[in-house]
Amino acid sequence: MPSETAQPSFVLVRPQMGENIGAAARAMWNFGLDRMRIVGPRDGWPNPKAVAMSSGAGRLLDEAQIYDDLAGALSDRTFVFATTARPRDLTKPVYSPEHAMKMAAEMVAAGEQVAVLFGPERAGLENDDIAKANAIISVPVNPEYASLNLGQCVLLTAYEWMRQAGDVTHVSEVPGNKGDWATGVEIEKLVDHYEERLEEAGFFYPAAKADNMKLNLRNLWSRMRLTRADVQLLHGIMRQMVRWKERG
Amino acid sequence: MPSETAQPSFVLVRPQMGENIGAAARAMWNFGLDRMRIVGPRDGWPNPKAVAMSSGAGRLLDEAQIYDDLAGALSDRTFVFATTARPRDLTKPVYSPEHAMKMAAEMVAAGEQVAVLFGPERAGLENDDIAKANAIISVPVNPEYASLNLGQCVLLTAYEWMRQAGDVTHVSEVPGNKGDWATGVEIEKLVDHYEERLEEAGFFYPAAKADNMKLNLRNLWSRMRLTRADVQLLHGIMRQMVRWKERG
Repeated sequence: MPSETAQPSFVLVRPQMGENIGAAARAMWNFGLDRMRIVGPRDGWPNPKAVAMSSGAGRLLDEAQIYDDLAGALSDRTFVFATTARPRDLTKPVYSPEHAMKMAAEMVAAGEQVAVLFGPERAGLENDDIAKANAIISVPVNPEYASLNLGQCVLLTAYEWMRQAGDVTHVSEVPGNKGDWATGVEIEKLVDHYEERLEEAGFFYPAAKADNMKLNLRNLWSRMRLTRADVQLLHGIMRQMVRWKERG
Repeated sequence: MPSETAQPSFVLVRPQMGENIGAAARAMWNFGLDRMRIVGPRDGWPNPKAVAMSSGAGRLLDEAQIYDDLAGALSDRTFVFATTARPRDLTKPVYSPEHAMKMAAEMVAAGEQVAVLFGPERAGLENDDIAKANAIISVPVNPEYASLNLGQCVLLTAYEWMRQAGDVTHVSEVPGNKGDWATGVEIEKLVDHYEERLEEAGFFYPAAKADNMKLNLRNLWSRMRLTRADVQLLHGIMRQMVRWKERG
């Protein structure tokens, strides 16, 4: 069963190689999309090579809707984007994947039925296909080298969908041990520990530079955002050096 | 000849299949990146399958720099991102590709030497590899289905590089001693210095825990973004403790 999340359909138009259909299914499902439509697949349907390539995302192929022509695939859609390698001279708005998927997210949230078209591997969408679209998505690529394949184009668009749809788990700047940051008191104790021992060891020399050296050391610890585990490790290092000296 | 644009190096760590190295080259060049480094390619180098897959981006393979180990590949780098399928329990900041490439664009514009690590196909980066990184990039994927391959991971990161590098209009303030970050080689030497001395001092005890303790210590240094001055200070601390012991 398809997921219940409202989402655009991704429509593969006359795809040639089964492998690429399978790769497209995987690319979509990586980003939570599972409504695939296929128009006139060159090698018929079902396609064993597509299945072989789709590992883990085979459900998308089982549930894919197959159409003879693009008009059929778009019959229930209210807004259609067409992806092209480079914007052609057609009077339609051209958007980046980011902008287009932001629009798609807003339209889908408002109950619209959105489709995104992807052309066949070799030639891309024909002008007749693009004529059925409301807008164009153009991936900004190196002008000297534009060689995205079908699966890659689906991947980037699906990635932008997930980002824009807000399904993106906000990957935070917070390190793994969340909530385990050392407190100010713990940092102070670390500063004191190092200062005391290094004083004893004659590190702060010459005297005229001692204050500055201490300041640098304190800055080092405080700039670093230490966790409790870090603080323990640093205490342990110093304790061990002292023990070693005392054994000596 | 590599392009003259300042840009990060993409480092493939122990890649297995030549096809994937070729796909990575294409993915990079689609978005204007052409500095590839390869660490310990499983099937040796050059790799005919990589060349066959790289159509149009073969120059990246000709110019790729090959290393025996990751430390070598990072010796001249000042900031290292590691891509992982899912953030592990290491206390490092975790960023989305978007955020990370924005940071990278700012750092590169400020003259820093940035690397992005991509792990081998099956297993991804090992903890020892990640320990050499300053921060982690995690692609936000469908939690029910995370199946990005090497080429796809390179593609999404390169895509975000192009997006973000285009957006950087002014160089933001880099904290600390601007332009004076420690390089990979300098961090390696610091790691070695502390390991050797602490070994001597009997810090890595019990033996069963030694490897883990060393990993934690390495993570501590790499997470912190040390300046050259910091590194000197930390060397100085250790040297002084040893001197103190020897005087004792």
